[in-house]
Amino acid sequence: MREDKILYNCATPEAFICLRVFLFMNKKYMKIAIELAKKGKGKVYPNPLVGCVIVKDNKIVGKGWHQYFGGNHAEINALTDAGSAARGADLYVTLEPCNSFGKRPPCTQAIIKAAIKRVFFAVKDPNVSKSREILEKNGIEVCGGLCNAQAKVLIKDYLNHLKIKPRVSVKAAMTLDGKIATETFDSKWITSQKSRNFVHSLRSKYDAVLVGFNTALQDNPKLTSHGKGKNPVRVVIDENSNIPKNYNIFNSSAPTIIISGQGDGGVDFGAAKKNFKVIIKKLNDIGLKTILIEGGSGIISSAIFSKCVDDIYLFVAPKIIGGKNAISVVGGKGVKKIADAVNVEDMRVKKIGGDLLITGKLKNKQ
Amino acid sequence: MREDKILYNCATPEAFICLRVFLFMNKKYMKIAIELAKKGKGKVYPNPLVGCVIVKDNKIVGKGWHQYFGGNHAEINALTDAGSAARGADLYVTLEPCNSFGKRPPCTQAIIKAAIKRVFFAVKDPNVSKSREILEKNGIEVCGGLCNAQAKVLIKDYLNHLKIKPRVSVKAAMTLDGKIATETFDSKWITSQKSRNFVHSLRSKYDAVLVGFNTALQDNPKLTSHGKGKNPVRVVIDENSNIPKNYNIFNSSAPTIIISGQGDGGVDFGAAKKNFKVIIKKLNDIGLKTILIEGGSGIISSAIFSKCVDDIYLFVAPKIIGGKNAISVVGGKGVKKIADAVNVEDMRVKKIGGDLLITGKLKNKQ
Repeated sequence: MREDKILYNCATPEAFICLRVFLFMNKKYMKIAIELAKKGKGKVYPNPLVGCVIVKDNKIVGKGWHQYFGGNHAEINALTDAGSAARGADLYVTLEPCNSFGKRPPCTQAIIKAAIKRVFFAVKDPNVSKSREILEKNGIEVCGGLCNAQAKVLIKDYLNHLKIKPRVSVKAAMTLDGKIATETFDSKWITSQKSRNFVHSLRSKYDAVLVGFNTALQDNPKLTSHGKGKNPVRVVIDENSNIPKNYNIFNSSAPTIIISGQGDGGVDFGAAKKNFKVIIKKLNDIGLKTILIEGGSGIISSAIFSKCVDDIYLFVAPKIIGGKNAISVVGGKGVKKIADAVNVEDMRVKKIGGDLLITGKLKNKQ
Repeated sequence: MREDKILYNCATPEAFICLRVFLFMNKKYMKIAIELAKKGKGKVYPNPLVGCVIVKDNKIVGKGWHQYFGGNHAEINALTDAGSAARGADLYVTLEPCNSFGKRPPCTQAIIKAAIKRVFFAVKDPNVSKSREILEKNGIEVCGGLCNAQAKVLIKDYLNHLKIKPRVSVKAAMTLDGKIATETFDSKWITSQKSRNFVHSLRSKYDAVLVGFNTALQDNPKLTSHGKGKNPVRVVIDENSNIPKNYNIFNSSAPTIIISGQGDGGVDFGAAKKNFKVIIKKLNDIGLKTILIEGGSGIISSAIFSKCVDDIYLFVAPKIIGGKNAISVVGGKGVKKIADAVNVEDMRVKKIGGDLLITGKLKNKQ
């Protein structure tokens, strides 16, 4: 790495001199932060791997890293670790601190609040804006680009993910007569093992799978890739956070986000139910850009009629279960007139096991 | 035609002598019956064309023919025409008189009641048994085979139809989410014009199309082939015969049978609803062997779960209408467990217009 590349980023002549002097030590601390970042490997996607070290009087007083998706950012963990020792200290972080409200207040605010003196970061975050301005406005010196090449490797997946186009898909396994469960909620198994395997693979291609409260409770699904690729983040819309913690959805295979009307930075369910767009927006904001909605009937309906579904995967089993009270694949209120139906284009069919897989794009997507 | 072929059929030596004498006149009357039979052309299928003449003292006192499907047999029309003149007369009929209860009492009973002296028929009906025995037991002379070759032509379609295997199919046009109508019963149009044209052709391949009361009333369908082949007989399950007579189902394009709990030789609906087999059996008995069930939701469910459906034609449109109160393609009670689903084998898909046509055979058929 070329030193001039680091140094030209410095904000003031004073900072320039300061950096010249401490360059060797700076690199040492940043390398420790890089090693810390690596501890989150396999647990944070689609978020970036980030490590952070807080240094005061040439001594490390705080360490932190982004441990798992949905967990605290590295800076917050390090600041917590340092406690009051953070006052007047230098903060070394592998990625530019965030400056927007996701699940929690931005790291810039926490850094200012902790009275950090100087911030060194390795890689600029293309998804972050005005962090430097905010920090500098608050009298904090900021230097970017330290150990840039080594730190850039950490966020390769994150950078690729930033390029991905947001996408919301619906997947359902239904009978030939359009039902996802009997009136007694029995649904195991409608489709063949081959179809279910296909779904496991499909999950690994999405940042998140989303289900409603009833599906999580009645089917008790794991919602993982079952070893067929990375596990997606699991999202459950559970208004009152009623799902028992020993349910499969909370196992250690993957992070789980509960969207509820209360606590833990939840999305307000009432509003979200009326406009599924709110849910999708919130999920996008925290880095979950591709979302596979897996049911149930009401959730699928809300998503489709909120005009935020891009495409569908309908697995159709060669079975008929009948029942006007059985659970339809798309429930909710529905439309009153056929003329108001949501049209599906580019409809394709293939056989999987003994089932059909019908895919298509929803024309009402906004 | 060889005379000995006619004569060996005669029951007694007296009848033999009598026939020798009257052979010329006999043929003349039978030829008139054959001409009468032809008047039913295009209106009686899958029943046979049949004509009948009643002769007393060398004078025709009664004429009749089978005029339309579901109408009186030729003998009954001729006997009615003759009135009391039938007493002691000869009856010439192109097809052996029936001896079983279909929509009405058997013709043998009517012939006996009218005190006919002799019966001449041209062609034996392979679907009739013991007519000759019954008539002869009641003192009526019977001679079969007169003008056999000319009369056989009349029942060619009928004979072919006797060879057809009974078949019950279900046809439905549904949305991708398995619905045949919105909750407000709107269903026009779910599928494309091409699919609907296909259905019109399909109808011409069945003896009858069957719908329930709600479908006949709400959709007001014609249920014809729309010029794409012969029109099937229309069958409506209408418990209380409530469908107004100005509805399309009663137009002059094809015969219409109402299955109700009252009058007109109706099938008892209560029993039939519990066991659709009763309906199918009754329809088979009156010559309707291949039946296309076209809805609605409850009727399709009753038919499938009564185990009398051979195969299905599901037209699936690229549309989603949603709604837990929308009308599912297979309603009724349904099964409680997925394990009890009706399995469909030999499932095939093809594209018609923008729709999919899924066909398959029901494994629960008994």
